[in-house]
Amino acid sequence: MDFDIIRAGRAVLHVTDLEKSRAFYEALGFIETASDDEKIFFRGLEEHNHHSIVLKKRDIPAVEVISYKVKSEKDLDQLAAFYEGQGTEVKWMEAGSQEAVGRALRIQDLSGLPVEYYAEMDQAERMIQKYHYHKGAKVQRIDHFNCMVPDVGKAYDHYINQLGFACSEYTEGEEKKIWAAWLHRKPSVHDVAYMNGLGPRLHHIGFWLKDPMNLIDGCDVLASMGYGPSIERGPGRHGLSNALFLYLRDPDGHRIELYNGDYLTSDPDFKPVRWDLNDPMRQTFWGHEAPDSWFDEASEVLDIHSNKKVTLTEPKLKKRKPTFVT
Amino acid sequence: MDFDIIRAGRAVLHVTDLEKSRAFYEALGFIETASDDEKIFFRGLEEHNHHSIVLKKRDIPAVEVISYKVKSEKDLDQLAAFYEGQGTEVKWMEAGSQEAVGRALRIQDLSGLPVEYYAEMDQAERMIQKYHYHKGAKVQRIDHFNCMVPDVGKAYDHYINQLGFACSEYTEGEEKKIWAAWLHRKPSVHDVAYMNGLGPRLHHIGFWLKDPMNLIDGCDVLASMGYGPSIERGPGRHGLSNALFLYLRDPDGHRIELYNGDYLTSDPDFKPVRWDLNDPMRQTFWGHEAPDSWFDEASEVLDIHSNKKVTLTEPKLKKRKPTFVT
Amino acid sequence: MDFDIIRAGRAVLHVTDLEKSRAFYEALGFIETASDDEKIFFRGLEEHNHHSIVLKKRDIPAVEVISYKVKSEKDLDQLAAFYEGQGTEVKWMEAGSQEAVGRALRIQDLSGLPVEYYAEMDQAERMIQKYHYHKGAKVQRIDHFNCMVPDVGKAYDHYINQLGFACSEYTEGEEKKIWAAWLHRKPSVHDVAYMNGLGPRLHHIGFWLKDPMNLIDGCDVLASMGYGPSIERGPGRHGLSNALFLYLRDPDGHRIELYNGDYLTSDPDFKPVRWDLNDPMRQTFWGHEAPDSWFDEASEVLDIHSNKKVTLTEPKLKKRKPTFVT
Amino acid sequence: MDFDIIRAGRAVLHVTDLEKSRAFYEALGFIETASDDEKIFFRGLEEHNHHSIVLKKRDIPAVEVISYKVKSEKDLDQLAAFYEGQGTEVKWMEAGSQEAVGRALRIQDLSGLPVEYYAEMDQAERMIQKYHYHKGAKVQRIDHFNCMVPDVGKAYDHYINQLGFACSEYTEGEEKKIWAAWLHRKPSVHDVAYMNGLGPRLHHIGFWLKDPMNLIDGCDVLASMGYGPSIERGPGRHGLSNALFLYLRDPDGHRIELYNGDYLTSDPDFKPVRWDLNDPMRQTFWGHEAPDSWFDEASEVLDIHSNKKVTLTEPKLKKRKPTFVT
Repeated sequence: MDFDIIRAGRAVLHVTDLEKSRAFYEALGFIETASDDEKIFFRGLEEHNHHSIVLKKRDIPAVEVISYKVKSEKDLDQLAAFYEGQGTEVKWMEAGSQEAVGRALRIQDLSGLPVEYYAEMDQAERMIQKYHYHKGAKVQRIDHFNCMVPDVGKAYDHYINQLGFACSEYTEGEEKKIWAAWLHRKPSVHDVAYMNGLGPRLHHIGFWLKDPMNLIDGCDVLASMGYGPSIERGPGRHGLSNALFLYLRDPDGHRIELYNGDYLTSDPDFKPVRWDLNDPMRQTFWGHEAPDSWFDEASEVLDIHSNKKVTLTEPKLKKRKPTFVT
Repeated sequence: MDFDIIRAGRAVLHVTDLEKSRAFYEALGFIETASDDEKIFFRGLEEHNHHSIVLKKRDIPAVEVISYKVKSEKDLDQLAAFYEGQGTEVKWMEAGSQEAVGRALRIQDLSGLPVEYYAEMDQAERMIQKYHYHKGAKVQRIDHFNCMVPDVGKAYDHYINQLGFACSEYTEGEEKKIWAAWLHRKPSVHDVAYMNGLGPRLHHIGFWLKDPMNLIDGCDVLASMGYGPSIERGPGRHGLSNALFLYLRDPDGHRIELYNGDYLTSDPDFKPVRWDLNDPMRQTFWGHEAPDSWFDEASEVLDIHSNKKVTLTEPKLKKRKPTFVT
Repeated sequence: MDFDIIRAGRAVLHVTDLEKSRAFYEALGFIETASDDEKIFFRGLEEHNHHSIVLKKRDIPAVEVISYKVKSEKDLDQLAAFYEGQGTEVKWMEAGSQEAVGRALRIQDLSGLPVEYYAEMDQAERMIQKYHYHKGAKVQRIDHFNCMVPDVGKAYDHYINQLGFACSEYTEGEEKKIWAAWLHRKPSVHDVAYMNGLGPRLHHIGFWLKDPMNLIDGCDVLASMGYGPSIERGPGRHGLSNALFLYLRDPDGHRIELYNGDYLTSDPDFKPVRWDLNDPMRQTFWGHEAPDSWFDEASEVLDIHSNKKVTLTEPKLKKRKPTFVT
Repeated sequence: MDFDIIRAGRAVLHVTDLEKSRAFYEALGFIETASDDEKIFFRGLEEHNHHSIVLKKRDIPAVEVISYKVKSEKDLDQLAAFYEGQGTEVKWMEAGSQEAVGRALRIQDLSGLPVEYYAEMDQAERMIQKYHYHKGAKVQRIDHFNCMVPDVGKAYDHYINQLGFACSEYTEGEEKKIWAAWLHRKPSVHDVAYMNGLGPRLHHIGFWLKDPMNLIDGCDVLASMGYGPSIERGPGRHGLSNALFLYLRDPDGHRIELYNGDYLTSDPDFKPVRWDLNDPMRQTFWGHEAPDSWFDEASEVLDIHSNKKVTLTEPKLKKRKPTFVT
């Protein structure tokens, strides 16, 4: 490949009530870098860039784009050439057209997801050692996107073979079909995961926490602020990725994962971990069930050209909610 | 009162497979003090007495007795006099008839629960600073019994007014009826709790952990040993008692609570905390539902005279599983 | 005894700069209940009473009094009778003369320490489940006083035999002399400890934290606020009492211990733990040395009648700083 | 550069008593992959390769080599060509000559440190989800080498400009001279650090822990097993690297750092963090002093050709132990 994707960089979400959203994300511990009547830019405590999440006030909740940071401006040009070479129409967002971000390239990827690449973002103060500003769940940094797509195998092949991602873990179902896959550019478990399901939809955005107690403390703080009903699932541990997780729904239903765990995946001889679709420990290492909403609900995504919602397609493989038979 | 009940002391459980039970309780971190072909005696890491749980091999799982430690032999005599004075038949277990325990007094209490009192138990080595023997969930000590009874108000009045317990927290439902109550002798939240339900049954035995991470580590260890399906509920936090909890089912279905949190209740001017039956944070501070089994299932108890199971009675108040309406 | 001392209740400290002190104690996570130009009243997150520490602005730092809560007004009268019976002059502080506290009895105890007893204190909101107000080291409640006195044996005998305290742990040196002792009324390791040394002085006030991570987080927050130099010792673990500790010096040099660990001591058959003065794990279970200041420095105390500093006396037993010889 | 160094890979240490060393490293939680009468191979819980530390029985404690993993066999050839091109004599260790490791290239680097590169190592079972085998401090994986060298500036320039390392943090003293530097290939804070001092010596090997409580638990377990005197410094936090640290001395005095914290450094626009040599929070964020031994003592290293100890040279810059002036 002639381009170097560094990591999951940011997400742009449409929300219907900016104040409600601000209160929620502040409760999680995000730092507000900037805002106006239409937008709020949040960053995690460890982040040295301007933001990792943008909330835009709109009438309908949706995902405008999920964005990857690339190494340099040149990588953007080469990504554009790559996409055009395979017949994908690209959309350039010129530098200055988006706050704090340089030139950006947007495409609708082969799963129908709105994807953006950028090389430059303004710097912001890292709050990592300003411990007296750490609050709530003390969100450290953006970690990954988890997407529901109708054809995981197709996305897997594309991101591995054409975009240079590596696979850390995957779930295999009937006839050796890939049911879900965890792919990374940075040497963690993932920058993006694909799960078989009605899609394309964004299932959740994962943010990394520095230790397990931040997750417990986060639950307590959220609950005492009245966000108990926003806690959808967890705390629990996934067998997959070994993540200690908490899933929350923001005021518009966008799902946020708070995540601790992870491991180093930079070795060339690291062997992807295979999970059987029927292994109950895959989903829930500790053994209690997830609610149906976690399997059924996800954020709809926009077409980067029309700004309309992308039509959903039923998954190729059967849906499957794992259960323990004791 | 002329007697001084110190604290919840031990439970005697009937189990059907001693080896399966041993493996389970060892995984939780209990220390085996003694055992033979019929019985195992376990203690927690902080405990200086011989045991806080006895497992006896029998054909049918059941609760033989829940036991309170009293201050001295004299207190036993006075308790016997108290019970006889109100027409309750007492049963003496002479010193030597039970391993490691002195003379014990057994009665069937007004809820039909098999209750035992003892003053003396053999000493055992405290493992509190033998950190290299701490394993699993690192269970520190017995904390409380939680019982489902048909008439909580009656049990509440009796234990408060006649046995000298104090109330730390309670749930009130329709018409100011007490739906559940947390009562203590030692200055923690409880030695015993009563919940409205089909009973008399033992809902769970609570064991205290020294920190929240022991609960997370306990989940991981239990799951990696194959006990994932034994985890029934949690980790979560109760609004009631502020407990960080994990509920497990032992191989015979007896429910064990691992518990961290608690607070000091020794002040005479401490005011019991009132919870409304309809307050969803009462049961689950963090906001996700408990499984039905937690509300419906509990261990049946034996008659101390006949050794037969005590007949169950429907509760006086309506059953109620709290739910969040978001 | 005809009186019932419940627990360590509060300390009244003289400080020279109220604003500096406020900033420090707020950084620890204390909640300010009330204040004026001369005084600040702080309570911990779990406490349901008005305060556990009072800071009074004065020219010279000192300890005005350490206070125990007793069961009822009657206990105060009987304590007064007890002290007068052995020739100790008592001083009554009438109800209303001290903010938020009922009638109080003050005496200079046999070690020369200014001691106060009270039965009543105004209630204040418990913040235990207001997790979004928990900050810094999240101080939960007052736990104990640690005093340096010239004759530990004398204090030990008096508090055990005449005031009804029980001993949980003690250090024994040459000729079986008690070098230090941990005594309790509430069923924890201690409400008061005595250590051999130049005295009478207050070595520290111990506040209880709910988990070990609060201690780590407390260090981080204090350091990022500029209080690094206030951290005198720790984090570490004492063999004695099994406490995970952090020692801080407030802006006037008063020493505060943040403390997690502890265990239940309510059993009549609990055997006090004996430590040899030469056992290095006694002081520092983990093995690194304490600074000299910890052994040498402590807060001077006032005479309850003259309000002047009490004259210091050299200890009867040799001073001793434990060291590891590896 | 024509080669790709992946990360710090392993260290080969000479120890004088294999059984004493085994006991120590097992107490830390290492898993023994293999051993014979002369050697023990240990790996961390997360590691999928055969080992990250090799202990060899020898008469004199020393560091045989510190090793980096490279991407492929080709990188070894190109590293050899690079070193030979600048006049450094290389030494090939053929595949099979070292247990579990493929062909390896050894050189004495410009600081005089014995450095090894290898591309292949046998796989071993990852224990990351075998939680019931996690013990002691639960060491997860090797993280970095910290070396004392007489000329940090020279090492810095070489590793940055010629070997492709990036700098995450550095300490600058008089005249803008680099006093210490943290350099990485994997996107963490470091794979290697250089500190100004008598050298070349290996100051410590850092191993990564997954959460802060593992460090506290590690202290407790080590102390209860009698390793209290092996704890040299900590727990504490460095300002530099934001590491929560514990420094231990193995039975031969080799220093091991247990380390939690770290942050992601993969962004091309990440700006190295500069610390002033006189900033006391640099060394010890929380504020208490390190013992002199930590500044003065380190493991001596061997010449890869002669197997003799490398001669030590005094540092170019002044030594400096930071202190707080309060």
